[in-house]
Amino acid sequence: MRPDSLAQAVVDSFADTENPRLKHVLESLTRHLHDFVVDVNLSLEEWETAIDFLTRTGQKCDDVRQEFILLSDVLGVSMLVETLNDIETPEATDSTVLGPFHMIDSPRRALGENISPDSSGQKCVVHGTIRDEQGVPVPSAVIDVWQADAEGFYDVQQPESQQQGNGRGLFTADENGRFHFQSVVPSHYPIPTDGPVGELLAATGRHAYRPAHIHFIVGAPGFRELTTHIFVEHSRYLGSDAVFAVKSSLVRDFTPRPAGTDNPCGLVEPFVEAQIDITLHDESGDDT
Amino acid sequence: MRPDSLAQAVVDSFADTENPRLKHVLESLTRHLHDFVVDVNLSLEEWETAIDFLTRTGQKCDDVRQEFILLSDVLGVSMLVETLNDIETPEATDSTVLGPFHMIDSPRRALGENISPDSSGQKCVVHGTIRDEQGVPVPSAVIDVWQADAEGFYDVQQPESQQQGNGRGLFTADENGRFHFQSVVPSHYPIPTDGPVGELLAATGRHAYRPAHIHFIVGAPGFRELTTHIFVEHSRYLGSDAVFAVKSSLVRDFTPRPAGTDNPCGLVEPFVEAQIDITLHDESGDDT
Ligand SMILES: [Fe+2]
Ligand SMILES: [Fe+2]
Repeated sequence: MRPDSLAQAVVDSFADTENPRLKHVLESLTRHLHDFVVDVNLSLEEWETAIDFLTRTGQKCDDVRQEFILLSDVLGVSMLVETLNDIETPEATDSTVLGPFHMIDSPRRALGENISPDSSGQKCVVHGTIRDEQGVPVPSAVIDVWQADAEGFYDVQQPESQQQGNGRGLFTADENGRFHFQSVVPSHYPIPTDGPVGELLAATGRHAYRPAHIHFIVGAPGFRELTTHIFVEHSRYLGSDAVFAVKSSLVRDFTPRPAGTDNPCGLVEPFVEAQIDITLHDESGDDT
Repeated sequence: MRPDSLAQAVVDSFADTENPRLKHVLESLTRHLHDFVVDVNLSLEEWETAIDFLTRTGQKCDDVRQEFILLSDVLGVSMLVETLNDIETPEATDSTVLGPFHMIDSPRRALGENISPDSSGQKCVVHGTIRDEQGVPVPSAVIDVWQADAEGFYDVQQPESQQQGNGRGLFTADENGRFHFQSVVPSHYPIPTDGPVGELLAATGRHAYRPAHIHFIVGAPGFRELTTHIFVEHSRYLGSDAVFAVKSSLVRDFTPRPAGTDNPCGLVEPFVEAQIDITLHDESGDDT
């Protein structure tokens, strides 16, 4: 069978698919996948390498490691999907990728609490207001945050030295849409390189680093849930994020303050202040 | 970032790849993968489903199960790679896919031996000659065969009732290129459906069956190694192989013979005879 008849035979095999969307996606996948294999004239040895790579990628995954998300991330696919699904809402805060570390539930915490009690580093006060596109505060918005520590590790990467939940918090904003919490300034960090994705980065001369950031998922009834990061201004790798997730609109000041500076967490020592205001998109006027 | 700039950023990230072939393959993969995601406007939920599907596909693999090869098979990719790599050699026997069951070494057996001592079913005598494209026998060619039994199972699928190596044999042809062995007539069989690939087939209304066949890998010094199957004439599913691997040139007679018919295995009872002559491509005249 010629390559183009073979692709057609595979497309035809999906003729009885009940779900029309699944049928469409699989037909397109078949065409693009076959086109790729033909374009590069893939050898049997390369096919075997690909099978082995994909198999090991799946087998590297467990409760706290998602190597296929990492692979999607370093190929820019995660950011592409995020971009396609972020319908034009210029007034709302931009979204970016979920990343592979949202694997455990963030512990519910009271406003003002320290989300990183097991971490040392520069103390940091994060505060802000959740608003709608008209600038009106959104009361009781739910804010899920997670971050790496000052050494660049998430809690799930250091189960010896950190309680699960360190660097994470689930908050409810007050009646004026305001939230605040204490933490440490996160570091830039390498994505995990001890698996197949690390081999890919090494073979292609790519570094594994992401600029320093704090992850947010913010939601409230009637508003589109926002998955994003806030990046630390002047962090290394802002220009070459390993997962292509930086948007300039998401970079914020992290400003050092001397001892005694007024702050909502009641810190008396020096700290770094980050004001992170977030605007949600009101879905009530959207088509469904 | 716009989708096309994002694809370009990912392509640019491979700029320092030392191996030019790897660089080319990854650039093409990035373009085709991003084109697919854009063409179907993949949703976040669909992306999550895909990540989960690929992860479970990897995790289904073990020493005797290769779910990623199965996935490649049912998407026609294995057959496409086989087709692209089967350079035009019209006089030689056609190749087809390796399939997922060549996972253990075939036991070395003497010519005439029964490769399926643990199987019941129609007794079968397979014999033939390995030749070059001029019709000259290839002495001492090495012939690796493996097959499902009369119930459609490979040894590795039935570890309780079959010794590993049942249905398999590694033979050396005699000085006239001839080989012969005893077995049972294989059945059509379903590829394993208790994993993600089975879910895909069910969701798309596809059956999982392959027409009855015996796998061969035949090699000899100076000749291109041939990976192929021989299909049993009139088997069910010859027209709708779940892995798209049938070529009409590979279908052979399996002819019932009455008790007492002369045969190289010395059987006195009734048996089915299959003559399987194979022509190898002499590589000595090829460019390298
Ligand atoms: Fe992160
Ligand atoms: Fe098979």
